[in-house]
Amino acid sequence: MKLLRYGPIGQEKPGLLDEQGQVRDLSAIIPDLAGQALTADSLARLQQLDISQLPVVSGTPQQDLRLGPCVTQVGKFICIGLNYADHAQESGMPVPPEPVIFGKWTSAIVGPDDDVLIPRGSEKTDWEVELGVVIGSGGSYIEAADAMNHVAGFCVINDISEREYQLERAGTWDKGKGCDTFGPIGPWLVTADEVGDFNNLSIWLEVDGERHQNGNTSTMVFKVPELIAYCSRFMSLQPGDIISTGTPPGVGLGFKPPRYLKGGEVMRLGIEGLGVQQQRVTRQGE
Amino acid sequence: MKLLRYGPIGQEKPGLLDEQGQVRDLSAIIPDLAGQALTADSLARLQQLDISQLPVVSGTPQQDLRLGPCVTQVGKFICIGLNYADHAQESGMPVPPEPVIFGKWTSAIVGPDDDVLIPRGSEKTDWEVELGVVIGSGGSYIEAADAMNHVAGFCVINDISEREYQLERAGTWDKGKGCDTFGPIGPWLVTADEVGDFNNLSIWLEVDGERHQNGNTSTMVFKVPELIAYCSRFMSLQPGDIISTGTPPGVGLGFKPPRYLKGGEVMRLGIEGLGVQQQRVTRQGE
Repeated sequence: MKLLRYGPIGQEKPGLLDEQGQVRDLSAIIPDLAGQALTADSLARLQQLDISQLPVVSGTPQQDLRLGPCVTQVGKFICIGLNYADHAQESGMPVPPEPVIFGKWTSAIVGPDDDVLIPRGSEKTDWEVELGVVIGSGGSYIEAADAMNHVAGFCVINDISEREYQLERAGTWDKGKGCDTFGPIGPWLVTADEVGDFNNLSIWLEVDGERHQNGNTSTMVFKVPELIAYCSRFMSLQPGDIISTGTPPGVGLGFKPPRYLKGGEVMRLGIEGLGVQQQRVTRQGE
Repeated sequence: MKLLRYGPIGQEKPGLLDEQGQVRDLSAIIPDLAGQALTADSLARLQQLDISQLPVVSGTPQQDLRLGPCVTQVGKFICIGLNYADHAQESGMPVPPEPVIFGKWTSAIVGPDDDVLIPRGSEKTDWEVELGVVIGSGGSYIEAADAMNHVAGFCVINDISEREYQLERAGTWDKGKGCDTFGPIGPWLVTADEVGDFNNLSIWLEVDGERHQNGNTSTMVFKVPELIAYCSRFMSLQPGDIISTGTPPGVGLGFKPPRYLKGGEVMRLGIEGLGVQQQRVTRQGE
């Protein structure tokens, strides 16, 4: 299933994409794509629905029908750093001996096609396409062998990053990762059964039509089940938590000299089978 | 006002502490101590209530009546590092030129007197008493001069930290700050009008009756209004967000040799006018 949330900002309703590319309304079935609606039992009930009986929502998604973030009420937006060996190299950092965990503030989450705002005075706003994992069933000390039973599905994430705030200001990375609009997620939450081999998905990002990132999830250092198990040693996971699994090479920081967003660009990014995001970059009023 | 949440874990109701030390039920007035209930308008309405008309809850708070976290649905648990000069020194780190921001996962939040769990295999679990600021009215790019208009109130926080996870594992501090039960908050959310001079509050922590931390908020490097303004440059703030403002000297990491929690201890900690927390330390089943 391709699950989604449609409608104006703050008024999104849950839906799913049918085989004809139409949105079907799920708001009579589940309150929203959040929390308990993401558990295995809930998703199994959705799988049993006769989709043809669900109301069709007028409009074409991502054209005249806005999509919101494909999950809401996200408790934790957990990110993995330097998880593609080539990206660690371009960032001038060693491949870590164990996963690097950092956080994005959940107030950074926006829809897949919403505008991305460069913070006031920022000169180093950068892109990072990533495979997102949405937790369906929570837990602590999860075993890697059991980890996929805790997954609701996957989505595209743009882990937008302000490199000065992240790397040149005192302290951890957290100043440069969670600015408002720095976390587009969607268009769809694709359930794990439909994704198939998540270790072999092409993953790419373009700025103004120029392809900068062009990778494959096969080159991840730490794989999804291992990441879930690892994170769950340092915190409990809850339904709706997101783990963003790192970015392949081609970010602006990696160019010689670095290339950052100035405002006015269009970013397009996608992952095989998970859809495409498109964001206009705008400069916040100063 | 001293606002609080009382009842069993997960079933807390909002209340307030009256002048006789009794809990009065607020659940007919506000849905919970969260979000819009924390704005200035909402707090002003609570101030107008005739408290004597509110139902008395039986039991003595923190004795036979459990208190939960004094705020719920926290979107961001923002922490400031190394914000007391003496604590930076004991940690072997320089006083930062600007505030250090890091995050605690919100799933770490527990009530003020709930058990604290040492993670499996952990050897370096440590304490940190801190002054917590709860945001009442959100915003971005807040001016320091206006910052206190965005504050609902203050509370005691124990910023429990696993030093190996924080400092000796790859990446940022986030692995060692957000383990489950690492964020006791409360007992009360004390509204800003009642706290008075938040720059001159004694702040202390004892382990098994031995006082380890004994400071005063007057020695903070960056003061509360400056911290709010600073954080709001890197993210928008929402009602219910918490900023934990750093710890004074006396943490276990600062002892020669360091002294960490082993399990079985009792921590008691408090801030002048904001109440006292008490947690038993237990070792998680391995």
